[in-house]
Amino acid sequence: MRRHLLLTIQYRGTRYHGFQVQKNALSVAQVLQDAVERVFGERLDVKGCSRTDAGVHANRFALTLRTNAAISCPAVTRALNVNLPDDIAVLGCREVPEDFHPRYSCKGKRYIYKIWNAQVKNVFLSDLALHWKYPLNTERMNESAQAFLGAHDFAAFCSAGGKKEDTIRVVTKASVIRQGEMVQFSVTGNGFLYNMVRIMVGTLLEISRGAISPDSIPAILESRMRSMAGPTAPPHGLYLDEVFYDEADLFEEK
Amino acid sequence: MRRHLLLTIQYRGTRYHGFQVQKNALSVAQVLQDAVERVFGERLDVKGCSRTDAGVHANRFALTLRTNAAISCPAVTRALNVNLPDDIAVLGCREVPEDFHPRYSCKGKRYIYKIWNAQVKNVFLSDLALHWKYPLNTERMNESAQAFLGAHDFAAFCSAGGKKEDTIRVVTKASVIRQGEMVQFSVTGNGFLYNMVRIMVGTLLEISRGAISPDSIPAILESRMRSMAGPTAPPHGLYLDEVFYDEADLFEEK
Repeated sequence: MRRHLLLTIQYRGTRYHGFQVQKNALSVAQVLQDAVERVFGERLDVKGCSRTDAGVHANRFALTLRTNAAISCPAVTRALNVNLPDDIAVLGCREVPEDFHPRYSCKGKRYIYKIWNAQVKNVFLSDLALHWKYPLNTERMNESAQAFLGAHDFAAFCSAGGKKEDTIRVVTKASVIRQGEMVQFSVTGNGFLYNMVRIMVGTLLEISRGAISPDSIPAILESRMRSMAGPTAPPHGLYLDEVFYDEADLFEEK
Repeated sequence: MRRHLLLTIQYRGTRYHGFQVQKNALSVAQVLQDAVERVFGERLDVKGCSRTDAGVHANRFALTLRTNAAISCPAVTRALNVNLPDDIAVLGCREVPEDFHPRYSCKGKRYIYKIWNAQVKNVFLSDLALHWKYPLNTERMNESAQAFLGAHDFAAFCSAGGKKEDTIRVVTKASVIRQGEMVQFSVTGNGFLYNMVRIMVGTLLEISRGAISPDSIPAILESRMRSMAGPTAPPHGLYLDEVFYDEADLFEEK
C-alpha cells in the first residue's frame, strides 16, 4: 500500500548548503535521502516545506516522502535517527493524506533570529547566533517591528534572486525580546519571500543604531525598493522555528 | 617593567586535546600562545589553573603570563580576541602579584555537567551535552549527590592515570537540577582529582537507573576503590564553570 509520510526534522545548518539537493554541495535533503535509502532499501524523493539557505538552522522542518514499506511511524523515526549524523534529527513521523504537500498545504511559518549581544563572542554559539558587539536598543527594535504586522507588499524585503510576481505576505506576530545577552527576533506569517527575515533583521539592526529611523518601516514597505531596507543579516542566526498546517489537512480519511 | 597578567578565558573544547600543550595534538594553550605571539611579538609561557581533558569545555578558565609589554589590560583582551579562533574567547585581563599562581593560588572550582535528557538528540548540543535517552530520576540523583558534601577521601572517584598521594578533597555544593529536557549536575569544591566529576556523573546515572543504590555513595567513598563507583561519563558534557581566588591574592600592592 502506497503511504505518504510527513517527517518533522531538526537540523543544524552549519555544514549544509540549505535543505534542497544541490549539485556539488552537501544538502540536508541529500543526507536525509542517504539515511532513508539505508532504512527503506530504496532511494526516495523528499519534498521539503521550504528551501533555507546555507548555514540556516531548523528547530522544526517538515518534509514528505512516499513509500510502500510497512515500517511503523515510530520505527521510521528510530531507524532514521540511528542513520543520521549528529546535526540532523527526526522529531516525529506521521501518515498524511495523498494530496498533502509540505509546501503548498502550509498555512504559515515562524522564524526566529538569534543575536548574541555582548562585547565578547560566545564560543558555544559561534555558528548558532549572530555576534553583535554594540549595545542593542531592543525596545526600539521591538516597537519598529510592529510595523511588519498585517498584509503588506514586502518587495523591499526580498533579495533579487527570489523575486516573485506576488510579493504580498501577511505577518501575524513580530517581536524582539532580550534574555540576558541573547536578543531574539521572532516573526510569524503566512509565507516569507527570499531572505525576508534576514532583511527584516538587518533593517532592525540599522534602526537600533540610528542609521534608519524607527518609524520608517511603513515608508520602506511602500517604496517596494530593496535598497531602502537594511542589509541582509548573516544566515547563521536564522532558524525555521515552526511550520503550521491545518489539522484537517493532516488527517488521513479512513 | 615585568608584568604578571591573569587572563580569564572561555573555550569550546571540541577541537582540542585539553588545555595543556601536547606533542602531536592541538591544545587550547598552544592556540592561545600563537595569538599571544602575534599580539606581544614574543612567544610567552602560559600557566593554566587546570589541565582539562580532550573535549571538555570551560565557561571560565584562568591562566597567567609574564611580559614586559606595556599594552593595557583592555587592549590585551581586544587584541587577543581578534587573533583567536571562534572557539576561544578572552573574557578579561588583570594584573596580579608576582607570586600569584593560577593553580596553587586557587581556592576552589565549580564544574557543571550537562545532560540532554530526551528520546531524540539535540542537534545544537551534540558536542555540548551528553545525550541520555532514558528518563532520569533527577530527584534521586540530587539526593544522592548530597553525600559528596564535606571532606572525603575521593580515591574511588579518581581515574588511575591521575592517582595522587593525597586524595582528600572538600566538596561544598552539589546539585542535580532539571530545566525542561536539560539536566545539570553542578559541583563546587576546593579541588578535584583526575576525572572526579565525570565519575561522579557516571555514578549518579547508575543510581538513576537503579544499578547502584541511591544511599551507597558513603560506602563507595569508604571503599576507596575505583571499581565500586560508576563509569566515567564522556567528556563533552563537562564544563569548568568557575575558578575561585581570594580577592587578597589578586591585588597587586602598589
